[in-house]
Amino acid sequence: MKDFEIFYPLRIVFGKEALKKFSQDLPLYGKRVLFLYGRGSIKSSGLYEKILNLFKKYKIKVKEYGGIKPNPPLSQVFEAISLAKKFRPKFILAVGGGSVIDAGKAIACGYYAQDRLWDFFEKKAIPIQALPLVAIPTIAGTGSEVNNVTVIVNEEKRIKLSLRSLLLFPRSSYLDPTLTFSVSKPYTAYGVMDALSHLFEYFHFRLHPEKGLPEDFLILLMKTLLREGKRAFDEPNNYSARSQIMWASALALSPFVRAGLGGYRFFLHSLEHPLSGAYDLPHGLGLSILMRAFLKRFGHHKVVRRFFLEVLEVPEGKDLARRGLKTFDSLLTYFELPRSLKACGLSREDLNFLIEKAWEILFIWKAEREFNKDIVKEIYEIAYEG
Amino acid sequence: MKDFEIFYPLRIVFGKEALKKFSQDLPLYGKRVLFLYGRGSIKSSGLYEKILNLFKKYKIKVKEYGGIKPNPPLSQVFEAISLAKKFRPKFILAVGGGSVIDAGKAIACGYYAQDRLWDFFEKKAIPIQALPLVAIPTIAGTGSEVNNVTVIVNEEKRIKLSLRSLLLFPRSSYLDPTLTFSVSKPYTAYGVMDALSHLFEYFHFRLHPEKGLPEDFLILLMKTLLREGKRAFDEPNNYSARSQIMWASALALSPFVRAGLGGYRFFLHSLEHPLSGAYDLPHGLGLSILMRAFLKRFGHHKVVRRFFLEVLEVPEGKDLARRGLKTFDSLLTYFELPRSLKACGLSREDLNFLIEKAWEILFIWKAEREFNKDIVKEIYEIAYEG
Repeated sequence: MKDFEIFYPLRIVFGKEALKKFSQDLPLYGKRVLFLYGRGSIKSSGLYEKILNLFKKYKIKVKEYGGIKPNPPLSQVFEAISLAKKFRPKFILAVGGGSVIDAGKAIACGYYAQDRLWDFFEKKAIPIQALPLVAIPTIAGTGSEVNNVTVIVNEEKRIKLSLRSLLLFPRSSYLDPTLTFSVSKPYTAYGVMDALSHLFEYFHFRLHPEKGLPEDFLILLMKTLLREGKRAFDEPNNYSARSQIMWASALALSPFVRAGLGGYRFFLHSLEHPLSGAYDLPHGLGLSILMRAFLKRFGHHKVVRRFFLEVLEVPEGKDLARRGLKTFDSLLTYFELPRSLKACGLSREDLNFLIEKAWEILFIWKAEREFNKDIVKEIYEIAYEG
Repeated sequence: MKDFEIFYPLRIVFGKEALKKFSQDLPLYGKRVLFLYGRGSIKSSGLYEKILNLFKKYKIKVKEYGGIKPNPPLSQVFEAISLAKKFRPKFILAVGGGSVIDAGKAIACGYYAQDRLWDFFEKKAIPIQALPLVAIPTIAGTGSEVNNVTVIVNEEKRIKLSLRSLLLFPRSSYLDPTLTFSVSKPYTAYGVMDALSHLFEYFHFRLHPEKGLPEDFLILLMKTLLREGKRAFDEPNNYSARSQIMWASALALSPFVRAGLGGYRFFLHSLEHPLSGAYDLPHGLGLSILMRAFLKRFGHHKVVRRFFLEVLEVPEGKDLARRGLKTFDSLLTYFELPRSLKACGLSREDLNFLIEKAWEILFIWKAEREFNKDIVKEIYEIAYEG
């Protein structure tokens, strides 16, 4: 096992009673709230009204900022910060998917950042203060509700970058799996593939692969996601499946799953960010297509073979690369997911832009020496054709 | 999955460089330290001198309290509190096994408890303040270094009780697996059986058993402990084995392993506490004998069968109870552990005392309605004879 350090200063409230606990805790967070949400799903589910009623009950003054888009754009973050500066909230409540929570984190530290917010993402400065954030996720997969990372799209620069800081942990996150019952089939699948890809990145792009407990934990979580993902896809109201997906996705981005793994790279994410950043492809969908391309290209690789054998449980034997890919493809078929960027409406002309952007990101992540541009190009080519 | 809540406000520093990080952090903890340790092993290993030199280097005033016994007695806790009250430390540093760290926690909250410390253990009062505690474990198994529980023996009352409080988390724990290289074979085995028993208690004494991720995580940790326990027993300086045992033991008592399991009872622990409390048997040894007795008595039980099949990997088939016990016995043989209390020097006359004490503990834990005295008696009988 490699050396590691864990400091995890957030409170996680998980289960059917999570919202009840939220309503008990709410008055303690303060009397002025900036309330963030996405594009309407919390209104149709009734959650929006429930929360507004709680604000009323406890006489909490609220400023709303709704309509936050998937792959949240910096312009929306700035808009919300302007609102917040006039309103002076005591805390931020983010209710929605990973995008809303990510936006909440960026707003929380952007509130004190003057004009330097984007510098944090380009690693030219670090945040030193942030508003307290409380999160209620309504979809499983991103893990944003239990970590200290935010990912934002700078539309002007057409780039999507991430920021990690101890200040960005939510104070409390309330994870109620029943809130994910209404997540559509496609978004259920995107969430599962998103979380799966996080674990696959750790599994494959470790700098010092080693057998043992940390790796076994990754394998366990990947298998759980695939098994329960299929169940939730077929039975949206299955609490057991929804709760396991929600918790496995959260663990997938917690320090406990990384403990002992040593250094790693989020290679597929560096290729995905240009897709969702510039073409607004759902994050989990892009990852799923890129992961497939990677498995196709490197099916002979030792670690990919172990993924086929131990996670997808493909029987040992000759021709493993082909059979492994076939099993992965049947997973995509199960989830009704396309296998290529072409099928998502991209054109061959987009590839050069994607390659340049991914390369730029690998540079910012200081990972450019571990990969090369030819591999990036090859993966995109395969992802394009399927 | 059952509802749960996690709040884990401690910093874990793990690995070969953990002590280096400790030496960097040390000056930040304060200029007066109460330094706790056990009965000499840190002196022979050179760790004691290393730490004293650090105190000197940073001009930290130190009051030492050494010689803390396994199954730490309340009298020692009071002695250390008296010392501390005169010395007024800024923080406590506990270096040693679970006993030293447990004593550190009791001293930390006892410092502010006037005469009410034991009331906390009898659940007649709760602590509201504690000195900051920093821990450096020198043995794997107890998990005390990463949780908020302390277990203390009241010699007058001849009872061993536990106390849990958010105040009892160490501020930081430095887990260096190389410090456990010098742990003797018997204590290596006790540590493994201690951690294994924690996981077995969750596995078997859940109030609402359910398949899925939380249970799979228990199974993974139990298998890891057995595999790596044997390796460390044979090769004391095997870093991979020692580090996995250390981390699996820590996780075994972390809220992450309990997440989603729902309520549970530490039944075997309620029977073990009288053994180590009154007869000074090593905690892990007593647990190992009691666990064997339980497996022998309930080998036909569904959950025990699954333990045999999935953890001990006994092949399916008839006569599973007998073959399962045989496999467990060969594990004890591997670890050179006795199978009976008789072999540890207890006599049949001790059984009545043990039964009464265990029953008293089950009452204090409010678990008396879920078990009955006949079962307690039966388990002790089998444990006695082997």
